[in-house]
This record gives sequence, C-alpha cells and structure tokens, in this order.
Amino acid sequence: MSSTSDRPTGRPRTIDPAAVSLVALRLFDEQGFDAVSMDDVATAAGVSRRSLFRLFPSKASLVWGGLDEFAVRFTDELRLRPASESAWVALRAAYRVGATFPDDTIEITRHRLRVIRANPSLERGGEAASTALTGVIERFMAERDGGSVDDLATRVRAHALAAAASTALTWWATHGEGRPEDVVDEALALFG
Amino acid sequence: MSSTSDRPTGRPRTIDPAAVSLVALRLFDEQGFDAVSMDDVATAAGVSRRSLFRLFPSKASLVWGGLDEFAVRFTDELRLRPASESAWVALRAAYRVGATFPDDTIEITRHRLRVIRANPSLERGGEAASTALTGVIERFMAERDGGSVDDLATRVRAHALAAAASTALTWWATHGEGRPEDVVDEALALFG
Repeated sequence: MSSTSDRPTGRPRTIDPAAVSLVALRLFDEQGFDAVSMDDVATAAGVSRRSLFRLFPSKASLVWGGLDEFAVRFTDELRLRPASESAWVALRAAYRVGATFPDDTIEITRHRLRVIRANPSLERGGEAASTALTGVIERFMAERDGGSVDDLATRVRAHALAAAASTALTWWATHGEGRPEDVVDEALALFG
Repeated sequence: MSSTSDRPTGRPRTIDPAAVSLVALRLFDEQGFDAVSMDDVATAAGVSRRSLFRLFPSKASLVWGGLDEFAVRFTDELRLRPASESAWVALRAAYRVGATFPDDTIEITRHRLRVIRANPSLERGGEAASTALTGVIERFMAERDGGSVDDLATRVRAHALAAAASTALTWWATHGEGRPEDVVDEALALFG
C-alpha cells in the first residue's frame, strides 16, 4: 500500500488508512454521508482515487471497520473474567474494557458513531458484527448462569444489554463529554 | 380492488389483502424469502400479477404493514393509562395490549416475525416504525418520570425495553407456544 517512487507533491509516501478514515468520517459527519463522494474523500485526504479504492472499496467501508476493535477488547476481557463472577458482573466489566477506546481513536470513534446514527441505512453494514456480539453475550450468559442460549430469558437479557450499551455509545458520541467507557458503565448501572 | 365481472374460475371476486399476505408469508417462511417470486405469490394466492402489484408494490411490502396495528394498540393503551402509574408499569401494560394480536392474525404474525428474523435485510423496512416507537417510549418516560427525552437514562431505558419486547416477540414466533402477550410480559418481568 505504500509508494516508493519519489513524489514531488509533498504528500506522504505511505498512506495511513486510519488518517484517511478520519478525514472521510469528519466530512461525512459535517456535510452528510450522502453529500460526500469518494472523489471528495480522495481530494481531502490527499490520495489518489485509485489508492483510496484499494484501501476502501466503498463509502460504507470507510465507516465500518473500527468497531471491530471494540468487539475484540470485549471478547478478550470476557474470556479473562474470573469464573466466580456472575455473568452480569463479568459482562459489565467487559463492556467497560471494550468501550475504552485508545486516546488516538476517540475522535474518529465519535465521528463514526455520529455518522452511523444519522444514516440508518448504514446500520446494515454493522448487522453481522452486532449479531455476532449478541451471540457471544448469549453464550456467555448461558454458560455462567446456567440455562440454554435459546431460553427466552437469555435472549431477552442479551439483546437488552447490547441495546443499552449501543445506545450509551451513541449518546456519548452525540453529547461529547467524558469518556465513552464511563458513559457505557453509567448506562449499564441502570440495570444493576 | 374488487372485481365485479363474472368469473368462471371459482376464485373469489374480492381480493382480501390479509389472505394474500398470509399466503405470501407462508411461502416466504417455508421456502425462504429470496426463493419466492411475486409470480409465485400471485399463483399461490390465485390472483393476477397485476392485482397483486396493485395491493403490494414489492415483496417487502407483503412482509411489512401488519405490525402497524401493534404500534396503534400500544400507543392507544399508553394514552389511557392512569397518570398515577409509573412509566414502567404503564409501558408494561401497554406492551401487553400491543402484543395481544387478534386470534385471526396470530398465524400471519408468527410467519411475519419468522421471515423478518431470517432476513436481516428486511429489517430496514421496519426501521422507521421501530424508531418511531422508541421515540414514543422516550417521550412517555420523560413525561411520567421527569427528565428529558435526551437524558442518557431515558434513552438507554427506552432502547433496552424496545429490544427486550422485540426479542420476546421473535422468540415467541420461533418457539411457537403460548400467546405472544404472555411471552412479552414474561420478558419484561425480567426487568421489573
């Protein structure tokens, strides 16, 4: 993905996908997702159209992707929680860790969540990840607290928890204060 | 929408949209939404392609529509709940009334929810209705219990409640026993 030829333009030789994403998400957030073209993104990011499409095949792919790291932190933490903890205590702790976005991704995460919120059609792109995460929660609840993943109580608790956490993250992104992990934890405390 | 000409085929002269929907949803549920064409639906329902498209402009419109009545029952009941009730008590009661599908719509509702569940892309069609319903809940909670519709607690509680009820209805549709309103009430009792 990096260019080794001499380039007189002063543009960076290596394209940083995170930097391109940030430029794109700022544009989508400020001007509206539908109003911004891939050409606009390429121009604003100072990369060629070709390089942009190589990294991101679509506008939607510029929005999605970064939330994977949330799921990785969440599931890793869940695996590490002591067996003595109830599912609820362990899940709440894992949500705190998952929602602890590194400082240098706070701005991009905020834009990302705002853009997704403003464009419900984008949510389709996150459906598979969201279904997978709810599945992780259902299995963990069933394993820790007994019962089957297919029990009404397990399914309902898992979906309500996922909705609460996701709503809290969106609220954080649109209200702009504090740390996302604190907002998520405050939201889950409502059900504690 | 009805035909007044003499028809020798023995088909009904008046096309009943509910009957056409039921035929379509049975097919979608049994054979898969993508595997069934509008022609298949027309043939199975014994109506012309033209009549079918006049009633239902797309396959998705055969799936959506009937859930509006849920929202109508729900919001009407919410309006009638005594002012002395907490938001939670009133909302739970309204969900019971909303989920009380008339006997003659139980089968179609079950197929409808199963088809939506099996085809996440269909959920887009329900987004507007689902967002509207969550908005109703947020406003009701803020009004009854104080606070603003934009408070973290209001938003999180409303989305978690909507997710719990929706998960319960889907669970009922795929597990096939009992009345939907009892399953929804059992689910909400988990948070009481």
